[in-house]
Amino acid sequence: MKIIVIGAAGTIGRAVVERLGGHHDIITAGRGSGQERVAIEDHASVQALFRRTGAVDGVVVAAGALHLAPFHAMTPAQFRIGVDSKLMGQVHVALAAQHALNDGGSITLTSGIDACHAIRHGANAMAVNLALEGFVAGAALDLQRGVRINVVAPTVLTESAAVYGHLFPGFEPADGTRVALAYQRSVDGPETGKVYRVY
Amino acid sequence: MKIIVIGAAGTIGRAVVERLGGHHDIITAGRGSGQERVAIEDHASVQALFRRTGAVDGVVVAAGALHLAPFHAMTPAQFRIGVDSKLMGQVHVALAAQHALNDGGSITLTSGIDACHAIRHGANAMAVNLALEGFVAGAALDLQRGVRINVVAPTVLTESAAVYGHLFPGFEPADGTRVALAYQRSVDGPETGKVYRVY
Ligand SMILES: NC(=O)c1ccc[n+]([C@@H]2O[C@H](COP(=O)([O-])OP(=O)(O)OC[C@H]3O[C@@H](n4cnc5c(N)ncnc54)[C@H](OP(=O)(O)O)[C@@H]3O)[C@@H](O)[C@H]2O)c1
Ligand SMILES: NC(=O)c1ccc[n+]([C@@H]2O[C@H](COP(=O)([O-])OP(=O)(O)OC[C@H]3O[C@@H](n4cnc5c(N)ncnc54)[C@H](OP(=O)(O)O)[C@@H]3O)[C@@H](O)[C@H]2O)c1
Repeated sequence: MKIIVIGAAGTIGRAVVERLGGHHDIITAGRGSGQERVAIEDHASVQALFRRTGAVDGVVVAAGALHLAPFHAMTPAQFRIGVDSKLMGQVHVALAAQHALNDGGSITLTSGIDACHAIRHGANAMAVNLALEGFVAGAALDLQRGVRINVVAPTVLTESAAVYGHLFPGFEPADGTRVALAYQRSVDGPETGKVYRVY
Repeated sequence: MKIIVIGAAGTIGRAVVERLGGHHDIITAGRGSGQERVAIEDHASVQALFRRTGAVDGVVVAAGALHLAPFHAMTPAQFRIGVDSKLMGQVHVALAAQHALNDGGSITLTSGIDACHAIRHGANAMAVNLALEGFVAGAALDLQRGVRINVVAPTVLTESAAVYGHLFPGFEPADGTRVALAYQRSVDGPETGKVYRVY
């Protein structure tokens, strides 16, 4: 199958490409890297990506920014970072992908453990990550032609522990190889509207 | 205590004013009705509201639009309705209220049963309503001076069944008087970071 991985050069994206690359044709995409360039915040850019690739069988998104900072000093513009990038960015991909995918194709988004397990300074991250879980549950019921949609909610990756670990004190990290299995379940499995929690 | 109710003229707002009005000073607010006018989509309008009222002890939001429609025909602009109005609108109130409230004051937002129980054409509603639950759980951990934040997730109101009931087939409605109790628990009780589910 032909699978687009948006954020393919990232920590999660690399593990997903490694996991799926052996048995699928992967099209790597990123903001400034990969075979295809795309900015998910921009719906037109996402539509242009699918026009260039033609029909595909799956799209994985492992990209999207959040704003982790104390709520008492937060501005609306800062809260908008997660809303415009990780939430609306992935919604843009789903909105465009549903028309670009072959019958039975899959959309796999990325949330995070903080959707359901609180972290300090997490108001934006927790809102956005939980929104994505509600979103796939709802969109799955409307999608046509057997198109599926799921979201992976990973704990902090072992590979990211040096950078993000202090934000998740006592949280058990998972290796990228293990997190990538959840993406494979979504792409190669039969389910839709599911949250794959890797924790 | 002095409590602002945004959306006071609405179906839920009227029940909240009725419940709280006997023992609190209520300031009614709405887009085109009430003692104070405010548009929650506009952070500056929300800030101006709190400047006009001066310090208060609580704010309740029973307002915010969603877009219920088939996902396969949805546009990004349509998905933005819920994100800009019900999600960012209530985030704007929380961002501004945290600085305007007296110590120990409360912020009470409104989600909905579809945050956790799927409805047809609910991708936008389910994303936005669940985002609000993640949001209060996160923001509660950062708020200072004892300021509290909770969200009420009502089922469809008996009073709204003629208008919205067909969107919630088999869902048990609740009377506004019962839904209003949850708002009272948030305003008059000690808790923070909670979801009060009325269903
Ligand atoms: N790492 C973790 O521990 C962890 C755990 C749970 C959830 N997550 C979530 O998983 C997602 C990816 O995390 P990561 O750590 O793998 O990220 P990362 O290493 O920073 O990589 C991000 C990738 O996404 C691409 N990208 C960034 N912004 C983009 C945009 N606007 N449009 C299109 N592509 C964009 C980047 O492209 P370029 O290569 O061109 O820069 C890069 O390939 C994030 O949403 C994060 O919240 C991460
Ligand atoms: N009714 C239900 O069965 C039900 C169930 C679960 C959840 N909810 C949620 O509860 C909230 C209120 O629902 P409702 O049925 O009570 O609504 P409603 O009867 O339509 O009343 C809405 C109220 O909010 C005000 N308002 C609307 N947009 C506003 C804005 N942008 N800024 C400030 N105020 C605004 C209106 O002001 P004006 O009076 O000036 O027009 C009105 O007072 C909604 O978010 C809805 O999703 C409702």
